[in-house]
Amino acid sequence: MIKITLPDGSVKEFASGITPMEVAKSISEGLARNVISASFNGTTVETTTELTTDGALILYTWNDVNGKKAFWHSTSHVMAQAIQELFPNAKLTIGPAIDNGFYYDIDFGEDKISDADFKKIEDRVLEISKEKHDFVMRSATKAEALELYKDNPYKTELITNLEDGTITFCDHATFTDLCRGGHIPNTGIIKAVKILNIAGAYWRGDEKNKQLTRVYGISFPKQKELTEYLELLEEAKRRDHRKLGKELELFHFSQKVGQGLPLWLPKGAALRDRLEQFLRKAQKKAGYEQVVTPHIGSKELYVTSGHYAKYGADSFQPIHTPAEGEEFLLKPMNCPHHCEIYNAKPWSYKDLPKRYAEFGTVYRYEQSGELHGLTRVRGFTQDDAHIFCTPEQLDAEFKNVIDLVLYVFGSLGFDNFTAQVSVRDLSNPDKYIGSVENWEKAEQAIINAAKDKGLNYVIESGEAAFYGPKLDFMVKDALGRSWQLGTIQVDYNLPERFDLSYKGADNQLHRPVMIHRAPFGSMERFIAILLENTAGNFPLWLMPEQVAILSLSEKYENYAKKVLNLLENHEIRAVVDNRNETIGKKIREAEVSKIPYMLILGEEEEKNNTISVRKHGDAGKTNETMTVEAFAALINDEVNKSLKQF
Amino acid sequence: MIKITLPDGSVKEFASGITPMEVAKSISEGLARNVISASFNGTTVETTTELTTDGALILYTWNDVNGKKAFWHSTSHVMAQAIQELFPNAKLTIGPAIDNGFYYDIDFGEDKISDADFKKIEDRVLEISKEKHDFVMRSATKAEALELYKDNPYKTELITNLEDGTITFCDHATFTDLCRGGHIPNTGIIKAVKILNIAGAYWRGDEKNKQLTRVYGISFPKQKELTEYLELLEEAKRRDHRKLGKELELFHFSQKVGQGLPLWLPKGAALRDRLEQFLRKAQKKAGYEQVVTPHIGSKELYVTSGHYAKYGADSFQPIHTPAEGEEFLLKPMNCPHHCEIYNAKPWSYKDLPKRYAEFGTVYRYEQSGELHGLTRVRGFTQDDAHIFCTPEQLDAEFKNVIDLVLYVFGSLGFDNFTAQVSVRDLSNPDKYIGSVENWEKAEQAIINAAKDKGLNYVIESGEAAFYGPKLDFMVKDALGRSWQLGTIQVDYNLPERFDLSYKGADNQLHRPVMIHRAPFGSMERFIAILLENTAGNFPLWLMPEQVAILSLSEKYENYAKKVLNLLENHEIRAVVDNRNETIGKKIREAEVSKIPYMLILGEEEEKNNTISVRKHGDAGKTNETMTVEAFAALINDEVNKSLKQF
Repeated sequence: MIKITLPDGSVKEFASGITPMEVAKSISEGLARNVISASFNGTTVETTTELTTDGALILYTWNDVNGKKAFWHSTSHVMAQAIQELFPNAKLTIGPAIDNGFYYDIDFGEDKISDADFKKIEDRVLEISKEKHDFVMRSATKAEALELYKDNPYKTELITNLEDGTITFCDHATFTDLCRGGHIPNTGIIKAVKILNIAGAYWRGDEKNKQLTRVYGISFPKQKELTEYLELLEEAKRRDHRKLGKELELFHFSQKVGQGLPLWLPKGAALRDRLEQFLRKAQKKAGYEQVVTPHIGSKELYVTSGHYAKYGADSFQPIHTPAEGEEFLLKPMNCPHHCEIYNAKPWSYKDLPKRYAEFGTVYRYEQSGELHGLTRVRGFTQDDAHIFCTPEQLDAEFKNVIDLVLYVFGSLGFDNFTAQVSVRDLSNPDKYIGSVENWEKAEQAIINAAKDKGLNYVIESGEAAFYGPKLDFMVKDALGRSWQLGTIQVDYNLPERFDLSYKGADNQLHRPVMIHRAPFGSMERFIAILLENTAGNFPLWLMPEQVAILSLSEKYENYAKKVLNLLENHEIRAVVDNRNETIGKKIREAEVSKIPYMLILGEEEEKNNTISVRKHGDAGKTNETMTVEAFAALINDEVNKSLKQF
Repeated sequence: MIKITLPDGSVKEFASGITPMEVAKSISEGLARNVISASFNGTTVETTTELTTDGALILYTWNDVNGKKAFWHSTSHVMAQAIQELFPNAKLTIGPAIDNGFYYDIDFGEDKISDADFKKIEDRVLEISKEKHDFVMRSATKAEALELYKDNPYKTELITNLEDGTITFCDHATFTDLCRGGHIPNTGIIKAVKILNIAGAYWRGDEKNKQLTRVYGISFPKQKELTEYLELLEEAKRRDHRKLGKELELFHFSQKVGQGLPLWLPKGAALRDRLEQFLRKAQKKAGYEQVVTPHIGSKELYVTSGHYAKYGADSFQPIHTPAEGEEFLLKPMNCPHHCEIYNAKPWSYKDLPKRYAEFGTVYRYEQSGELHGLTRVRGFTQDDAHIFCTPEQLDAEFKNVIDLVLYVFGSLGFDNFTAQVSVRDLSNPDKYIGSVENWEKAEQAIINAAKDKGLNYVIESGEAAFYGPKLDFMVKDALGRSWQLGTIQVDYNLPERFDLSYKGADNQLHRPVMIHRAPFGSMERFIAILLENTAGNFPLWLMPEQVAILSLSEKYENYAKKVLNLLENHEIRAVVDNRNETIGKKIREAEVSKIPYMLILGEEEEKNNTISVRKHGDAGKTNETMTVEAFAALINDEVNKSLKQF
């Protein structure tokens, strides 16, 4: 008999040799129907593996990440079989599951695979799947394995590097593959499959090796899930911020300026500025003071802050001067500069908290392969601020920051977010700087604040930075993808390193606590996520252009200008399209630019001093005719509804 | 007989051997009384030098720079005599005139000179002066000279390096000095003298040599002129922007952040922001579009622009990356980035002009000895913009820019300025890039614009940059000092280098012209000059804090807050001082902070819902009592008067 421990902590006894699937059946038939994969003592096993020792068993269904991985890994076997049948000369190499689906790297030799083959492969995968072939693992000797793959130099290389006695194959139907295991019970549950695309990939990721063809696919237990996934992919493509950024003329990358260094075009710069002004206004009310600091600092500054020792080697390298042997670094963060501002004069406890805010542009080296649109760049602007306060003020300050973050998210339509409180690993106290009392106080302050503000939060032990606990905000976008945005961090380290102090009521010098915080995180990343979340249909208050004034012909130029002036008097942002083009073309272009309102002007309108209003996306509806004043009131009403005061 | 040509072009004949003073007398006794120095054929001569050849003679009075130089150089002889008498062991070295006065570098040996000696020296100088000793030049052989200075190693070194036959002495009273000449007729016209200060100076400026004492002085033909000069010096000290910047808490330099890299404190950052918003608003009306670009660019970008070849070696050195061998440079100017923005899409002549504006922070290496407050820094923010237009648009665009510059200067109280048009050196046409037609057009455009706008301008041949002609604005500050502020430059070079183009009405590609322009020049320099010009009493619209609300005691906190809220509703910037301090102290501190209005609140005011208004600098006047609303109207009226709409 062996003892099997289940995830709920319960322990059951079974005869040695029982399989995970049999354990599932012993719990319930329903569970057994859904189990597609398992792990035993932390190692992936087959659902048919015979268990012969005591241990912890986890049963996975499609809803678990591990279940999906087994599902996709298994499908890659079936796809390999289908490809091998269609391309007998293809030499298989490796075919793992990935976050969304699977791939197989294949040397097609003289043959060529193209999009036209995808359907054939999918059809054959589904045929094989329908036949409900079991996936069966078996051991093989090194000699057997090398014999099987004698014509495949890739598998031969893999086998050569394995130890005899550890080599296993997986069989299904007529197909055998070198495999470490982790399969679904049989092919029958693969109900939908899609070959997504092909790409080049070097054998073992080394560009000195031969280039193979990587075939990407994904599969599902239900056709409906595949359909939904493909729709999501299409939507994500439509919402890709790089595509929207180009269409809306927000930003541009120039190879000559440098990779990962966005140039903000006029409309994008205006959008950024609007977001900045929005936050500045709220921050002013919350008692922040704006400061401005340079984009470089002496190396000494970062030696003091500790950043140089920690990140120096992986960063942009020091800037030397032609004389005097000075060394500067591109600023990777604003905090050391703000500490020096704090240090510019002595403070009393009565002066605190000091809240220094800066839209500070920082530079961090990323390998070019890691760069991605605005979400992974080499230069970005943080909506940064540092609060210097007494330990007694920490609680209230933390709550104030949460209020600000909630206001920002609310004003931008991010309603679906969660929070994570990162605290110490209590079993490893030496990892952290600062007194135990202060840590306890700070962690409790964060948890109290999160509770008080009704946040949906989790506490993660051991996730705190060495210098203090923190609170991060994770936002789900319109496609259900999760992004880390705002962050609030307590810091006991920099006040020590920069020897910050204030005179307390006791007339003694004390160490202030620092809070780092950035509700947006960075302007670049935030705008990217905002673009993907709204597909460019920003809240009306934020739109670079709120209204397009489209004349029926060039004759109405004066009236168009008059309407523009009236709108500008009401602080409404409008553009005039008075080109010699058809109204249809003008509307189409305004739609692509996502401009929320289009005003159409012709003879009738000019005569009656009215405008004909069309809303973005309202094709087919009848335009509404009204006066400019009525329209301006309508717009400003909508703005006031979407943008509350802080 | 010899022919003497005078500055007015007239030629007179005199007997050979006539002296400049005799020529002066021949013109008029009045002139002779005022002549203190002369030059003959471009060389400085004594007023007593006998002229024996034909040549051009210029006679200088105190009103000429050369007259002042002779006056001060002569005084330095008299000071040297006085010091030698008071400090018999002092070894004299050199003693030239400088822009404002003169100095003498002296080795005092065991003796020590201090401020306490200044008066004694001054008194002795005036005593000698009163005796009306002539300055008499005479030749000496090297042997004689070395004999005279056998105990003075410094003069010995100087003489050793001179050629025999070229050595001259100057005698006056009992004193002789090694001297090349250039003196006033006699000591009698020195009526006022001041020893200003002493400083260390290495012999021949080489820090490996012995440190001498440099004694600075200045002298005048009238006591009143000295008095006025000393008052100006005091005023300049009071207005030193480094001093005011500290007192007003505008900016701070931290050695740790780095020399020449200002940190803008909250009040300074607010001031900067206000100036920025002021210019942004005007620029928006003038059709500029804001862009945002990174503070670094690939080395390639600056190779393309030509900046790397020209300035690379003297600049901050390239930034290397940990991998991939990329090289970046700190951005020394914004134009290459803006060219790449222009290049982000194709343009038609109908789209032009494009006007890209950016408050772009740039970094330029300066040796630490060259750094000075905010006027000479290593990082500064230009109020930069680049206009890309067709050659036909250049004329109108240039005029528009002048309008903007005049608006900016007018709004900030800089009424006293001149302009300089820098054009080609026609004798050196190969120095310039771009067609002769374009240059002629551009130069004419600038001159026409300057004329049209009624500027007080001069044309300087050969002062144009190689890439185009320009117009610079020189502003006189409150102390009469001249500063170069705004600049407008035409550029034919970068459009070539970046291969910029637009499609013309002829459907062919054409090269646009670029205009670089910056009305402020840089935010740092402009604020420094504004500080020195206004002594911190900025125009009301610009003041970081317009009103200080001073409570008579802490009891009136609520009423003070109420007044603050009312003012904020009228967009007036106010601060509350509700500390437990005397009203006298509060007023003094508000005066130091240059806050234009102080509102004093006590029982009476709270009861009657009024405020007692005191103006900055109005000590002794009775405060005026009024309602907050009346006061707000008064302030906003004053703002509107000082800040016109563009």
